[in-house]
Amino acid sequence: MSENDGSGIKLVMGFIRPDKLGDVKQALAEAGAPSLTVTNVSGRGSQPAKKGQWRGEEYTVDLHEKVKIECVVADIPAEDVVDAIAEGANTGEKGDGKVFVLPVESARQIRTGKTGPDAV
Amino acid sequence: MSENDGSGIKLVMGFIRPDKLGDVKQALAEAGAPSLTVTNVSGRGSQPAKKGQWRGEEYTVDLHEKVKIECVVADIPAEDVVDAIAEGANTGEKGDGKVFVLPVESARQIRTGKTGPDAV
Amino acid sequence: MSENDGSGIKLVMGFIRPDKLGDVKQALAEAGAPSLTVTNVSGRGSQPAKKGQWRGEEYTVDLHEKVKIECVVADIPAEDVVDAIAEGANTGEKGDGKVFVLPVESARQIRTGKTGPDAV
Ligand SMILES: Nc1ncnc2c1ncn2[C@@H]1O[C@H](COP(=O)(O)OP(=O)(O)OP(=O)(O)O)[C@@H](O)[C@H]1O
Ligand SMILES: Nc1ncnc2c1ncn2[C@@H]1O[C@H](COP(=O)(O)OP(=O)(O)OP(=O)(O)O)[C@@H](O)[C@H]1O
Ligand SMILES: Nc1ncnc2c1ncn2[C@@H]1O[C@H](COP(=O)(O)OP(=O)(O)OP(=O)(O)O)[C@@H](O)[C@H]1O
Ligand SMILES: [Mg+2]
Ligand SMILES: [Mg+2]
Ligand SMILES: [Mg+2]
Repeated sequence: MSENDGSGIKLVMGFIRPDKLGDVKQALAEAGAPSLTVTNVSGRGSQPAKKGQWRGEEYTVDLHEKVKIECVVADIPAEDVVDAIAEGANTGEKGDGKVFVLPVESARQIRTGKTGPDAV
Repeated sequence: MSENDGSGIKLVMGFIRPDKLGDVKQALAEAGAPSLTVTNVSGRGSQPAKKGQWRGEEYTVDLHEKVKIECVVADIPAEDVVDAIAEGANTGEKGDGKVFVLPVESARQIRTGKTGPDAV
Repeated sequence: MSENDGSGIKLVMGFIRPDKLGDVKQALAEAGAPSLTVTNVSGRGSQPAKKGQWRGEEYTVDLHEKVKIECVVADIPAEDVVDAIAEGANTGEKGDGKVFVLPVESARQIRTGKTGPDAV
């Protein structure tokens, strides 16, 4: 067995607008990748910080609320999962987010003890 | 030096029930991997959404509160860490969670400037 | 195209003190890596749990509030990003945190559909 016994298992990690979470969940389910984990995060992309006013004081908004989506997949191509997230999250406006794919070396389902692609 | 100077460093990432966090922390400490990071997340596995009732309205629970555990390890096999998380988190019921292992290329301890396995 | 069409894309993942976030954001912007995602987490490093007293009761603090920083980078060396985070986060005291680098296989910017290093 090679060190990477999880070959073909990928972590698809997306940063999206919070109000697109419903659309992304549906797109993922339709793509055959219903399992996911959601985290509330904040972040910034490549735009410079925005300035605003509150009660006469100027302030800078430099971190925007986003949602992080993590989907570990094995039986369908990671790029299909990227497509699903991008389709569900797209509005065409700046701030729609990004999706990254990372390699996963092994997986375990706790209840069953299954490992490898069957555990995902 | 190869690009991957962290060979042997792994990120063990588990999704567990919030009420098993104490057991998992203890199992990790006993396995010699006391360092960890905890994040409150929500997610769903392979079960279809559950339906419930609230004040006469039907609603769907499709994301369950979970805890994400991240342990970066170098000196002990990642599979021992997976075992510890799985042992601590197991109840035998659906929803117990999953554990994934990802490769890590380098590590730095901020206070000391140490790198590689010594930094983990 | 090789499976890893994102060669050179890295995820730099740091765990820092919450009150050093401002310094770290500035150090990252100066290093040419302004994009980042921030998550509130809690964790412990290699120190044993601290004991305290509250209203006469002894309690154990074993998880400390930290901030997780994630920066995906392609055009600048990941080690420069590690340097920036470490510089911004360093106080010289225990608990300053750690930085890890993980490989990323592909990237997509949702709004533009760009992929690879241009998407980061
Ligand atoms: N390189 C990156 N590393 C880590 N997180 C990122 C990165 N780029 C974007 N993000 C996360 O994604 C969120 C949305 O990014 P955003 O869509 O604004 O990217 P962008 O490159 O500025 O694209 P756009 O021009 O369409 O706004 C950010 O708030 C941040 O949480
Ligand atoms: N493939 C996955 N990708 C990302 N997160 C996942 C994945 N599978 C499970 N999770 C996370 O783990 C949590 C628990 O999953 P769960 O134990 O229900 O998995 P399962 O496959 O349905 O197994 P079981 O049949 O034992 O319930 C989910 O709520 C989610 O946060
Ligand atoms: N091996 C690890 N795996 C996952 N998270 C870690 C690991 N080590 C540290 N962390 C995260 O980083 C935070 C800060 O760690 P900390 O700086 O205390 O590490 P340390 O090894 O104890 O170094 P120091 O001796 O300088 O305190 C922890 O609270 C935890 O969130
Ligand atoms: Mg933007
Ligand atoms: Mg389940
Ligand atoms: Mg410490």
